[in-house]
Amino acid sequence: MTDTPNTPILDRVTYPADLRRLSDAELKQCADELRAETISVVSQTGGHLGSSLGVVELTVAIHAVFNTPYDKLIWDVGHQCYPHKIVTGRRDRIRTLRQKGGLSGFTKRSESDYDPFGAAHSSTSISAALGFTMARELGEATGDAVAVIGDGSISAGMAYEALNNAGDYGRRLFVILNDNEMSIAPPTGAMSRYLSNLATNSPLAALKDIADGVAQHLPEPLRQGAERARELVTGHPKSATLFEHLGFTYLGPVNGHDMAELLAVLRAAKARATGPVLIHAVTVKGKGYAPAEGADDCYHGVAKFDVKTGEQKKSKSNAPSYTGVFGSTLTRMAETDSRIVGVTAAMPGGTGLNVLQKAMPGRVFDVGIAEQHAVTFCGGLAAGGLKPFCAIYSSFLQRGYDQIVHDVALQNLPVRFMIDRAGLVGADGPTHAGAFDISFLAALPNMTVMACADEAELVHMMATAAAYDDGPIALRYPRGEGVGVDLPDPGTVLEIGKGRLLQDGHDVALLSLGAHLAEVQEAARALEAKGISVTIADARFAKPLDTQLIDDLVANHAALVTVEQGSMLGFGALVLHHLAATGQLDGRCAVRPMFLPDRFIDQASPSDMYEDAGLTATDIAATALQAMGVATPDFVAPKRA
Amino acid sequence: MTDTPNTPILDRVTYPADLRRLSDAELKQCADELRAETISVVSQTGGHLGSSLGVVELTVAIHAVFNTPYDKLIWDVGHQCYPHKIVTGRRDRIRTLRQKGGLSGFTKRSESDYDPFGAAHSSTSISAALGFTMARELGEATGDAVAVIGDGSISAGMAYEALNNAGDYGRRLFVILNDNEMSIAPPTGAMSRYLSNLATNSPLAALKDIADGVAQHLPEPLRQGAERARELVTGHPKSATLFEHLGFTYLGPVNGHDMAELLAVLRAAKARATGPVLIHAVTVKGKGYAPAEGADDCYHGVAKFDVKTGEQKKSKSNAPSYTGVFGSTLTRMAETDSRIVGVTAAMPGGTGLNVLQKAMPGRVFDVGIAEQHAVTFCGGLAAGGLKPFCAIYSSFLQRGYDQIVHDVALQNLPVRFMIDRAGLVGADGPTHAGAFDISFLAALPNMTVMACADEAELVHMMATAAAYDDGPIALRYPRGEGVGVDLPDPGTVLEIGKGRLLQDGHDVALLSLGAHLAEVQEAARALEAKGISVTIADARFAKPLDTQLIDDLVANHAALVTVEQGSMLGFGALVLHHLAATGQLDGRCAVRPMFLPDRFIDQASPSDMYEDAGLTATDIAATALQAMGVATPDFVAPKRA
Repeated sequence: MTDTPNTPILDRVTYPADLRRLSDAELKQCADELRAETISVVSQTGGHLGSSLGVVELTVAIHAVFNTPYDKLIWDVGHQCYPHKIVTGRRDRIRTLRQKGGLSGFTKRSESDYDPFGAAHSSTSISAALGFTMARELGEATGDAVAVIGDGSISAGMAYEALNNAGDYGRRLFVILNDNEMSIAPPTGAMSRYLSNLATNSPLAALKDIADGVAQHLPEPLRQGAERARELVTGHPKSATLFEHLGFTYLGPVNGHDMAELLAVLRAAKARATGPVLIHAVTVKGKGYAPAEGADDCYHGVAKFDVKTGEQKKSKSNAPSYTGVFGSTLTRMAETDSRIVGVTAAMPGGTGLNVLQKAMPGRVFDVGIAEQHAVTFCGGLAAGGLKPFCAIYSSFLQRGYDQIVHDVALQNLPVRFMIDRAGLVGADGPTHAGAFDISFLAALPNMTVMACADEAELVHMMATAAAYDDGPIALRYPRGEGVGVDLPDPGTVLEIGKGRLLQDGHDVALLSLGAHLAEVQEAARALEAKGISVTIADARFAKPLDTQLIDDLVANHAALVTVEQGSMLGFGALVLHHLAATGQLDGRCAVRPMFLPDRFIDQASPSDMYEDAGLTATDIAATALQAMGVATPDFVAPKRA
Repeated sequence: MTDTPNTPILDRVTYPADLRRLSDAELKQCADELRAETISVVSQTGGHLGSSLGVVELTVAIHAVFNTPYDKLIWDVGHQCYPHKIVTGRRDRIRTLRQKGGLSGFTKRSESDYDPFGAAHSSTSISAALGFTMARELGEATGDAVAVIGDGSISAGMAYEALNNAGDYGRRLFVILNDNEMSIAPPTGAMSRYLSNLATNSPLAALKDIADGVAQHLPEPLRQGAERARELVTGHPKSATLFEHLGFTYLGPVNGHDMAELLAVLRAAKARATGPVLIHAVTVKGKGYAPAEGADDCYHGVAKFDVKTGEQKKSKSNAPSYTGVFGSTLTRMAETDSRIVGVTAAMPGGTGLNVLQKAMPGRVFDVGIAEQHAVTFCGGLAAGGLKPFCAIYSSFLQRGYDQIVHDVALQNLPVRFMIDRAGLVGADGPTHAGAFDISFLAALPNMTVMACADEAELVHMMATAAAYDDGPIALRYPRGEGVGVDLPDPGTVLEIGKGRLLQDGHDVALLSLGAHLAEVQEAARALEAKGISVTIADARFAKPLDTQLIDDLVANHAALVTVEQGSMLGFGALVLHHLAATGQLDGRCAVRPMFLPDRFIDQASPSDMYEDAGLTATDIAATALQAMGVATPDFVAPKRA
């Protein structure tokens, strides 16, 4: 295998229609070439390799059998879509994947007609597919809907809701369960064990022998065919699967890497299905690339790498990541406080809870892809006397919003929300941006909201969260490395609702919340270069506000600029609310909140995304200058004290 | 049965400990008396009668067998808790139910130690119970956790996530499935059909005969006992239920109104369980009260009524309800626009979609208690070419928040969110308050947010939503009656982002968003009585803002007061954002946003709740006066034009 693989069949394929002109033998070879091309691409771009390698044959087979884009193929999560993008007119841009101005790392409606429903969060595909299906039933011009969903994703409540509803409606709809017994981390939950049993009871070795049988029998009316297939496969014709309880015809398990078997099953299902069908395909994450198959995470997300050795070219880090500091700090804290526990929704590694999990396995609960349950479960843990640290990325915490309102905030239970990936996140783009958490949390009574300026502040705020038993408290921090400051051990418990003054000036006040402080400090230097005296403060808390600090800043400066890594209706709006309610918006101090713009920001490096968002140091300095200029001359720097 | 029933046994019961001193025969009689008392109570207070009558025997049996409050009894939704409140020290206040200063209509932690985890939204109980369970496993002083969940609630994704997780952990935990084949409306979904089959395959008639058998066998080690029971009950010893697939021991179905059977099963389960147990109890909603058993909705929620006749004392309405206007208007619109469809999460009656459902059954999708799925399903319908009207109460829409962000707003799909019960809702209290929707929706790019001032505006805004194909649009309206204005037919398509001027004055501007307009007009009259000239405007849109209107108001008045039926970080904050960004907070016009306070408001009549919230006409007038007084005299009414 070389860096630029030889792909004679794939070279004839620009769109799926080209696949449909190939023989079955050519399709098999095309899949092999597509796998090599995918490895070559990701070795240059980095990205989600393991999942893409697991669905190479599925990608080719589905496009060969179904009439995409009239038929709607919906990839759940969408991070396994690289082979799909290569065969749907995007091979010429595939090496721009996840880069600024390039292809998205996920499916995206605005990018191609072959992406009928974008994704990036888990477990949405069956709901969307059922939507297309019912639109077709009501006369809209759309064909069959095919959802491809992983075993991790199908265990989420949302997928269950969709299966339950689709089974009830009973309309023709295809769900392909891509079962690699591995979401990102080893799977948890009873459903996972159940799927594993289904697959184990009919090992693939045996399946190989009956593949021809399946192919022969399935083109018969599907009701008979499916029963026959199930009998062949499970040996228990009368034992219904969980999916059949929910109204689906169950086909499988089939070998998701055997092109002949896949084509036979898909063709039979397409020809005969009258209701919802679940096709259980067993696949191997990282399939066909030895370094990936051999890795613990099957190369779920990788940096650029050397194809021959599999060695990833990770850039040297200058400071520990916020995630890493969270993980090690929580572990140290848990050693001295037996009531501290960690809760994750299927992301022990991503959140850093794997450190505590390894040290004290009984103190970490991985509840699966189940954010709704995770939050209320934390409510129960807190009501039961423990100190749950609920570690969920900002954008995924949106999944548990009602539970935060109804089960935690309303009951004022001391759940500690640890919100990683707050702000813009880089290559994962707008679907993973942690833009809205300040807004949706601070609007809630009883909620305390912190954001840390650096990794030392993270440690202090974790200590503060552990010590705070009076209600829910949230702490947001960004993706990536800290700034390289020394880490305190232990952290200091901060006074709730108090910020800190970092630099005392008299013309302009810059009030930063969270991890944009370095840019704020750079802006201050630029302003000082123009002879302007700058005060810098770190609010630490979005809620409760440090009203004394804010009142002082407003009273003693011609302009106050607030800066945050979040959407409108966040920290800046809280400051405005306070100033309006107390009659301080009287024109003596011009107030300018700076926040993310009211649009979604496409993927790029985080710093490029913040430039796109108008939140660079230069933007901050310019806003401060503009604010000062706008103020009536009489009111410039009216030192009241 | 009289209005004040004779309850000699119940009179001896203040707390559950008193139940534990009664004989089984006395417990049975106590349940009968508790049923009579519950009917008597609700005849005076109104409330959720049907569900409470369905769990009378369960309430008595659980408290008699388990050691509450050390053991944690968690009622899902909590609206069936009236009998529970009567036997847990609250009988003396039970006739204050759902009234101002009285008992909550739901379980509530702050009200009693016997309510270990409050509820009101569906499907949270298993998550909370698992939280208590794992706290106990880590050494906290708490006993067994018992979740009681209805067949409607258990079909929601969140409950499935919790079952999946609890089955995986395998710890001792009790889930009682209260299966009355009826959530609020007739149930939908494949799970519902499945439960119905489970119950039908072992009819209660047969169960009666084997009740003694169950009682005899269960005290044996539960593994054997359960298998025996299942064999007896289902006739299929080898056929696992869906719950067993998920790792639960399944017991049932049992007759939820047979005290002897319930006591036997609960005692056996409590004595022997080593892991998670699901007890399937079949009950009748409205049990034991003929008018309830005979009613379509089994007296789910009732007004005060006459016990003898069952006749409800509904107050005469002066105007149609917003819900009713929504239902009839959507039906008329659907007649002329074949692409309009309605989507509800198990509340066709509550949302008014039952009108369209009756007229055109194929045009309404009731997806069950599944708000996450409902929203993304609407995304699929919209992507498939239809015009989905997604009708979900404000507080329940919180359940679909991530789906609104990730599947609808990010993809800019034209889903129409019809948000009933926006603002404070009265007797249902803080759990059902629609407080946060303006904030959590307006923060999202691509989202348009409307709020209607009266029922005629509702019709116009529905027409606007139907005509708007450029992205998602939301329309909020309150619980209860409109103001009695004539209804337009058809509605007029409004210009997006444009408000309306209702009255032109020159001192103070009152800018209302939504259904608080009548209070705003009353405040204006009070101000005018003091010689102040008042401008009144209706913003109509929270997003996009009518910036021209706002700029005019700020330029021409000494004070601007915004009024909305929602939390902070809503419409008022959007107005402040605009004014700050454009340098208009220069002190010439004092700006005062008025919104719900930063605390949860306990149940009362809506008008009493708004008084509690500081949003009466008097409050609005006082705020306007204060704003004018606060402004520097030089700047009072600086008519710039």
